[in-house]
Amino acid sequence: MWLRTSLILTLFLTLGACMKEETQKPEYTLVIHGGAGTITRDKLTPEKEAEIRGELNAALAAGEAILKDGGTALDAITAAIQVMENSPNFNAGRGAVFTAEGKNELDSSIMDGRTLDAGAVSGVKNIKNPILLARAVMEKSPHVMMMGTGAEKFAATQGIETADDAYFHTDYRWGQYEDAKTKKNGPLLDHDGKAEEEAPKGAMNDDPLNGDYKFGTVGAVALDKQGSLAAGTSTGGMTYKMHGRVGDSPIIGAGTYANNKSCAVSATGHGEFFIRATVARNVCALMEYSGKSLQQAADRIVMQELVEMGGDGGIIAVDKDGNYAMPFNTAGMFRGHVTSLEAAKVGIYKD
Amino acid sequence: MWLRTSLILTLFLTLGACMKEETQKPEYTLVIHGGAGTITRDKLTPEKEAEIRGELNAALAAGEAILKDGGTALDAITAAIQVMENSPNFNAGRGAVFTAEGKNELDSSIMDGRTLDAGAVSGVKNIKNPILLARAVMEKSPHVMMMGTGAEKFAATQGIETADDAYFHTDYRWGQYEDAKTKKNGPLLDHDGKAEEEAPKGAMNDDPLNGDYKFGTVGAVALDKQGSLAAGTSTGGMTYKMHGRVGDSPIIGAGTYANNKSCAVSATGHGEFFIRATVARNVCALMEYSGKSLQQAADRIVMQELVEMGGDGGIIAVDKDGNYAMPFNTAGMFRGHVTSLEAAKVGIYKD
Repeated sequence: MWLRTSLILTLFLTLGACMKEETQKPEYTLVIHGGAGTITRDKLTPEKEAEIRGELNAALAAGEAILKDGGTALDAITAAIQVMENSPNFNAGRGAVFTAEGKNELDSSIMDGRTLDAGAVSGVKNIKNPILLARAVMEKSPHVMMMGTGAEKFAATQGIETADDAYFHTDYRWGQYEDAKTKKNGPLLDHDGKAEEEAPKGAMNDDPLNGDYKFGTVGAVALDKQGSLAAGTSTGGMTYKMHGRVGDSPIIGAGTYANNKSCAVSATGHGEFFIRATVARNVCALMEYSGKSLQQAADRIVMQELVEMGGDGGIIAVDKDGNYAMPFNTAGMFRGHVTSLEAAKVGIYKD
Repeated sequence: MWLRTSLILTLFLTLGACMKEETQKPEYTLVIHGGAGTITRDKLTPEKEAEIRGELNAALAAGEAILKDGGTALDAITAAIQVMENSPNFNAGRGAVFTAEGKNELDSSIMDGRTLDAGAVSGVKNIKNPILLARAVMEKSPHVMMMGTGAEKFAATQGIETADDAYFHTDYRWGQYEDAKTKKNGPLLDHDGKAEEEAPKGAMNDDPLNGDYKFGTVGAVALDKQGSLAAGTSTGGMTYKMHGRVGDSPIIGAGTYANNKSCAVSATGHGEFFIRATVARNVCALMEYSGKSLQQAADRIVMQELVEMGGDGGIIAVDKDGNYAMPFNTAGMFRGHVTSLEAAKVGIYKD
């Protein structure tokens, strides 16, 4: 008698859980980030904070409009990333930081979870929207990754829009460059391999918009109504990075990964650590192979493994059921999300 | 009675198995590859085959000498790869193929399974041993990956040996370049994204030393007496590749990965597919997260996933217990292995 009762009870509870699960599954989900770092309230003026929140909302709106109309996750993340690349406030596209040689070298990558098709570019100059070039490499070239002048020549054959140095010059980033330059004999160029000691000391480490001297990246991940995932990332890299340095943003499996079997991830942080930890692939592998939830997998990599290694940063991730995660082990991360069930919401600080 | 007998029998069998396992665990293991492709007996003269087998044995000997003396897996794979980079018979270092612009652009990467430290270079010219530059990036720079002229400038600060164009010019590879050039309006430059249709048709596809026009790579993985793993890869990339194309060889997680928790992998094949499948990391993730054996994980990625995607090639892998795997889905793969328990053995064909 007791057994039958408890069996029936269990049956109802299970059914209830299933129905709850069903009704909670969103038709589409879009998550974006604009970089992670030492971002705290005392470091952003109310005006600047409002400006950034407005741009994050504009990026979400651009992507959601496509998803709502039944467009692809690939188109949605491309649109959202373009909005952030066009803002001088994020370290990507127009707002890119300067290398040790005073240039802007841009990295970007994109991946389609339906086919595992991917495209990436690294060290490209004067490309207005690197995410569009990464997508062109994926869709129009026989290759997955192209670098430097070779990638720029390919861009020309594809009619990718360019912009002159002046477009990428913001006094703000140049100030950061000058700040680093005065410390050029400092740890950053010591080549001692101790990443944590590379920071040009001083103001830049407290710089909320740079999201730490070494961070600042934009990215987006999405699930569309067809159940497909996509991820994309774009960055100007590290302020005063050595000419030729490639971070995690253009590396498929490190800064960007999407697979309809598991999830889509875009990362922002100290790229060297993110490459070594194969962050984006690793989060999806934990879901795919050990049955962890998206939140469990994302937290394990960002809040445990990266913290143990000393890798500062965060990720945005969405899984095939529309669940999303946005863990970061820094003071803040510019971020936002919207689903068919939740209104757009942007965040900057931990709380 | 029957139960007790069978229990005792099981106990003995288990003990036997354990002891067998124990005695079979090698003190060190070294596995190398020199590229995969359509390599069949009818395409190699006895002289050329003997020459290549000799060089593979020399690479194994150089690495084993270090492992036998208690040296690190990192030093062993570096030594083995240098031997193959110095041979004109493999598409790496001296024997590198030519890009569409008639240049040699070299890619290489290395990873230390103890610390997950890694170094990689892509698109570097006139570097005699790219594996040494990748290692210098890992040990002497604050970065993990460097490309092009920036990487070359860094090489100069580190006293990395360079070589002039003549050193890299082999009539053999130049012939392949000319062959591809005559087909420059062919599929390779169609940018139709259909990788399988890019092959410059003709002799190159039957070219055993090129291991298919798009292959040819050298790599090594090892376990040392301290129980540490390391992996390294070096290549000239695809014959007639577009200037700026980056393959899987310099991508940590795609062409190279090492982690003492699981395994060390070096890949050779059609790089675009290997990047999209995050091959090296994926094999180790399958071991680490779903408890597959090295052979099971390697076979699943190379003989199933890559075959379904249309990605030709193979990998060499060694796990933390010294087990090794060398699956390839092509006609042949230049390869060799040696352990503290097995004499050096090299192979070329399937049988």
